[in-house]
Amino acid sequence: MTTQVDAVLDAAGPALSGRMARVEGVLSAAATWADGPLAEHALATIAAGGKRLRPMLVFLAAGEDVPGGDEGLVRAAAAVELVHAATLVHDDVLDGAALRRGRPTVVAAGGRRLAVAVGDLLFSRAFAALVRNGRVDELRALSEASSALAAGELMQREDAWRADVSVERYLRRCELKTARLFQAACELGALEGGGPADELGGFGRRIGLAFQLLDDVLDVTGPPERTGKPRGADLLDGTVTLPFILARERDPSLPDPRDIGDDADAVCDQIAATGALDDVRAQALEMVAEAKAALPRADRALELVADGVVDRYS
Amino acid sequence: MTTQVDAVLDAAGPALSGRMARVEGVLSAAATWADGPLAEHALATIAAGGKRLRPMLVFLAAGEDVPGGDEGLVRAAAAVELVHAATLVHDDVLDGAALRRGRPTVVAAGGRRLAVAVGDLLFSRAFAALVRNGRVDELRALSEASSALAAGELMQREDAWRADVSVERYLRRCELKTARLFQAACELGALEGGGPADELGGFGRRIGLAFQLLDDVLDVTGPPERTGKPRGADLLDGTVTLPFILARERDPSLPDPRDIGDDADAVCDQIAATGALDDVRAQALEMVAEAKAALPRADRALELVADGVVDRYS
Repeated sequence: MTTQVDAVLDAAGPALSGRMARVEGVLSAAATWADGPLAEHALATIAAGGKRLRPMLVFLAAGEDVPGGDEGLVRAAAAVELVHAATLVHDDVLDGAALRRGRPTVVAAGGRRLAVAVGDLLFSRAFAALVRNGRVDELRALSEASSALAAGELMQREDAWRADVSVERYLRRCELKTARLFQAACELGALEGGGPADELGGFGRRIGLAFQLLDDVLDVTGPPERTGKPRGADLLDGTVTLPFILARERDPSLPDPRDIGDDADAVCDQIAATGALDDVRAQALEMVAEAKAALPRADRALELVADGVVDRYS
Repeated sequence: MTTQVDAVLDAAGPALSGRMARVEGVLSAAATWADGPLAEHALATIAAGGKRLRPMLVFLAAGEDVPGGDEGLVRAAAAVELVHAATLVHDDVLDGAALRRGRPTVVAAGGRRLAVAVGDLLFSRAFAALVRNGRVDELRALSEASSALAAGELMQREDAWRADVSVERYLRRCELKTARLFQAACELGALEGGGPADELGGFGRRIGLAFQLLDDVLDVTGPPERTGKPRGADLLDGTVTLPFILARERDPSLPDPRDIGDDADAVCDQIAATGALDDVRAQALEMVAEAKAALPRADRALELVADGVVDRYS
């Protein structure tokens, strides 16, 4: 994806890299808002980074010239990333995960109590940062997206270990857990940049869905050295995804999620053998194509981000 | 406290009981925002109730006549209670608590994953409810209070099991964990009612501090059948509070928190024997007196609420 990011930076013009650097400053300030080990852990979470895909979407959806200047835009981008980071910290509590992006998780380093509180703090600082923009429409977008994230996590719990999860229900979960925050990122950028929030939000929602579908493919294909987690981690966790759902329609001999035990590798091979992964990839590609087609204006940088979601997995 | 609540209702005029009933409706709607077991657990948390002290503060700080009508006021009251409820759910995750207010906690009934997500959802719905008021100043008050809550929880973690927690640090923790949400409740009421938010917020902050001090006295005195938890639960949990800090200054033979083991009853008796509890009670009473003196106008109902904080523990 690095080449892709370079291409996006080239296409987006000189403002983007400056904005991306400034968002790091806001993130650090939010993470160090409280003193002590909290700050240390929150900062480590933020510093662990990741692709900063959501802030980039905020910036690209805003366009190069923002009426009110870049300050509010950078805060909006940071707010979205803070909600995302809070979710990751809480997910790691839930999963008891030891590593994320190759570093110890907050929960592993500081315990469950600390991790729940660090997540709560990052979440609160997201709203506190966005409040400074003084725009209720932006706060609405963020609060609806963060509600969706929690509802999606609950839905995932409810559906865990069930062989009968429907495609519709899976897609609804992806929308709540992933797509709505992508949507909010684009809406916030549009609101700051004066662009059409509905259309750009729809773009974000579609590439968010594609992102999740392809992430679920990657869980099956691996390889672990690329994904940083064992193949079939979702299956081992009871999370039923589209590759499994479609594969089991074709090959009923695929085991019930409850019966997979510790040997996810063989099940992953069995899923791949059905050709279901190609189907999921095709659905994701279609979503990306729809996203690009629905853009209110031709925008090379946003199109490249959409392609980047796919390229990561090709 | 029931008699006290009745007295407040009498003093506050007929609007209060109607408002208190309406806030339940908003709380239920927030809890049932998502479907499935989530809704069930979130609703159970909300229904378990408690005193609804914070919504009452919102209403009383607003006064009887609210320029914009009661709808926004009721939403503000619900938002504060939702943040409080989210905190309780997450606290129970942290503590692994099995019961709260005599009912199974979300974490006991549905597991840790569900409880973290239910807390996140209640939290998100608090902001979503308040966004509908369209007032950035209100959203600022809530986001600062919720940040403080998380920072206070982290501070409590940091200070756990330490015999050398200072009085200043203890008071700062109480401010973050308890007083700031009381303050926000009064500020939100003042903002809706057109009253002085700073003064009313200061009132809320002071009675919030007193509330926490007296809660910490009650942890030492019990009795369990009244508090719903064993005597010395804080000590057993490593939480060092003012009664312990002051008692240990007077009686250095009090054990280090790490050495208390399971026998908190004897330590509670030893704390009580130093007379430290009277000191803490006196400090709390002084805070309540200051709160009442700082009220911008004589207000019988707010004064009764302040007294109610004390009476609960007399």
